[in-house]
Amino acid sequence: MFKKILVANRGEIALRVIRACREMGITSVAVFSDADRDSMHVQLADEAYCVGTARSADSYLRIDQIIAAAEVSDADAVHPGYGFLSENAHFNEVCRESGFEFIGPSADAMRKLGDKNTARSIAIANEVPVVPGSDGLIESDDVARQTAAEIGYPVLIKATAGGGGKGMRIAESEDVLAGALKAARNEAAAAFGNGGVYLEKFIDRPRHIEVQVIADTHGNVCHLFERDCSVQRRHQKLIEEAPCSTLTPERRDAICQAAVRMIRGADYANAGTVEFIVDQNNDFYFIEVNARIQVEHPVSELVAGVDLIKEQIRVATGQPLSFKQEDLVCTGTAIECRINAENPDRGFQPSPGRIESMFAPGGMGVRFDSHVYAGYTVPPHYDSMIGKLIVHRPTREEAIATMRRALAELQIKGISTTASFHDVVLGHPEFVAATIDTKWVDREFQKP
Amino acid sequence: MFKKILVANRGEIALRVIRACREMGITSVAVFSDADRDSMHVQLADEAYCVGTARSADSYLRIDQIIAAAEVSDADAVHPGYGFLSENAHFNEVCRESGFEFIGPSADAMRKLGDKNTARSIAIANEVPVVPGSDGLIESDDVARQTAAEIGYPVLIKATAGGGGKGMRIAESEDVLAGALKAARNEAAAAFGNGGVYLEKFIDRPRHIEVQVIADTHGNVCHLFERDCSVQRRHQKLIEEAPCSTLTPERRDAICQAAVRMIRGADYANAGTVEFIVDQNNDFYFIEVNARIQVEHPVSELVAGVDLIKEQIRVATGQPLSFKQEDLVCTGTAIECRINAENPDRGFQPSPGRIESMFAPGGMGVRFDSHVYAGYTVPPHYDSMIGKLIVHRPTREEAIATMRRALAELQIKGISTTASFHDVVLGHPEFVAATIDTKWVDREFQKP
Repeated sequence: MFKKILVANRGEIALRVIRACREMGITSVAVFSDADRDSMHVQLADEAYCVGTARSADSYLRIDQIIAAAEVSDADAVHPGYGFLSENAHFNEVCRESGFEFIGPSADAMRKLGDKNTARSIAIANEVPVVPGSDGLIESDDVARQTAAEIGYPVLIKATAGGGGKGMRIAESEDVLAGALKAARNEAAAAFGNGGVYLEKFIDRPRHIEVQVIADTHGNVCHLFERDCSVQRRHQKLIEEAPCSTLTPERRDAICQAAVRMIRGADYANAGTVEFIVDQNNDFYFIEVNARIQVEHPVSELVAGVDLIKEQIRVATGQPLSFKQEDLVCTGTAIECRINAENPDRGFQPSPGRIESMFAPGGMGVRFDSHVYAGYTVPPHYDSMIGKLIVHRPTREEAIATMRRALAELQIKGISTTASFHDVVLGHPEFVAATIDTKWVDREFQKP
Repeated sequence: MFKKILVANRGEIALRVIRACREMGITSVAVFSDADRDSMHVQLADEAYCVGTARSADSYLRIDQIIAAAEVSDADAVHPGYGFLSENAHFNEVCRESGFEFIGPSADAMRKLGDKNTARSIAIANEVPVVPGSDGLIESDDVARQTAAEIGYPVLIKATAGGGGKGMRIAESEDVLAGALKAARNEAAAAFGNGGVYLEKFIDRPRHIEVQVIADTHGNVCHLFERDCSVQRRHQKLIEEAPCSTLTPERRDAICQAAVRMIRGADYANAGTVEFIVDQNNDFYFIEVNARIQVEHPVSELVAGVDLIKEQIRVATGQPLSFKQEDLVCTGTAIECRINAENPDRGFQPSPGRIESMFAPGGMGVRFDSHVYAGYTVPPHYDSMIGKLIVHRPTREEAIATMRRALAELQIKGISTTASFHDVVLGHPEFVAATIDTKWVDREFQKP
């Protein structure tokens, strides 16, 4: 077992890893920027090293400085957390070449999955459904008709040089396909000087469902069930829950097994997430693999009863997984709300500053993972998440009630937070009925 | 269902009840003394009424003031919490006669169980073991020999007028019985002017094990397994855990069934605790029933997966229990440490005062139930408990590791707390081996 782990991250995820280390009897080493001296992750680690100035590029992204801290502290391993260098295959290699185990997958698996085309090929080779589309550009209306018939309508016509919705058209049926193709080609040619287009199945009201997976280096792969992360604002997840309340047992098993095949196919070890887009028929399509621990991992560890960070550390030492798939039972419902220092009444603009007073919610079924406290100043330099409020209750209805109770008692004065917005979402009939999709927040709460 | 509940208590238990009300959609009413204006239980209740000045006798024990608050607020029911008026049968009756349901057992059951002799008779009638002893005073050495032979050695000789250990002797065998009797009689006669003595089985190194029970008004009685509360300082519980790690499945079942028989025998409805003394052979003897919710109820609700306060409220409305005994499975180990504002380095003297800064522990498996926060002043007028740190993990070993991690990150600056003492106990080989008894803390940590 490792004796000492350096945590190459900040904030709540650094604290999360430090907590796991302490419970396992492992010495923890924090790194921090000038702006993070007062963060609780620095206070609660056994050792802490400053790795640079406030700007991420000058501190948390400085591979040389982080390796230097690992050398000075004589660490055995590095936990990258999420964000920053966590999916940087070069950092992964440098850690291992410098003699520090990287707590995550191999650099090779990271590179394969980081490349969209390679990842899609691995998915197809392992019978993991991907969004159906044309093989490359559409050369003629005839090919378009044939391809669209195979994919099934509605289809999305996308410009190969496109972006921002330009050169994009939806064709609901064959009747309108030729006209839509022409319009898309013209628009793309005008906008990008390139009229090339391709076809993809149009997913109406998509949901984002992802499967938490963990694998060891002995070929064991387990999933920890799925999470529904469809509550997103401008592609940023706000609320995550486990399990997804709208999947049948058959569909749940199918998506989880597909995720396991994907991870096996990529020769992947350690924790990872296989992300899917799911349509209104509960058909699912692979998007990508996140080759790291994610912000929303707690909802999965609560319903599965597994401490994911401890398991990451164990498998990084070469130990087999401490459980088998058949040991895991999905119990109850867990929901996580990301508490961001943002003002929901002002377009979610960041609200850094000093926390004047604070009350962290407690009670049955409530977990609050945060590095902040009364008197702490939220720095303006990083992402605005200051805590994760997580509940775990026997039913979804109870989980929603407990989360709303916990949101009501969370007090963070001196800055604005997204707590009040979460309460509005959780009280919304469409959230309660679980009929939402990934565009719902943007539609429902769009300011004129 | 009740629309509004008045919570006739303060601090963490008031907050606990308020949380349950909010999750159930019930309006909560707090009462408070002048000294408690800033308590979080007052801030988080939907309504709050001052019921008097700081002294308990002038506020939280003022039945007239509490009834007045219930009338003014138009409450449907009163939750008494623990301590204060919670086991006062008169208050219970006054509430019901005034039209407010008392969330607890009937006044009749409370009275029966509040009387030691009646409670012992109910136990005997329901085949619940009690500490064996002589029927009344010992008239002669012959009767003593006969009784001691029936009880089994060692026996304890106790003065009927006694107290403070005076007139008390242990007889290990028949050889020393007559001599010990004579010595006890002489000492008692000299100290109290009354030489009457009686015999009781001497329980060597006793443990305190109690069973959480809840019953409805339809005759359904369920237990939520047992708690080991043997870590006590001068008869005050410090650490409680569920389940007891030293009971065999057969003994666990026996003690839980005995508790259910006791509750049935007393015609008891609502939550209650049946307390036992347990000897080194795991034989158990009834002590008393606590006819209320207890401080340590969270360890039972965590291992059983039942929200006890919500269940109390449900059965008080006349609903049947929401589960059956066979639905309940004891999962993992839960431990609670009472965080008191006391200085363990100065004989646990109370340490009221202003909390200058604070960090409440979080993370996997950790629950912190407290009404205090940075900037809050702990008043000197009440018991010194300012919070309960509770963990729930798959194994006892993990629960201890998580609790020690959580204790290490709990920061309450400006006052002294018992957190550091708990860490010493949890790290002690005898606590880890679960070989302790109710006198262990007093023996092990006694200052010269």
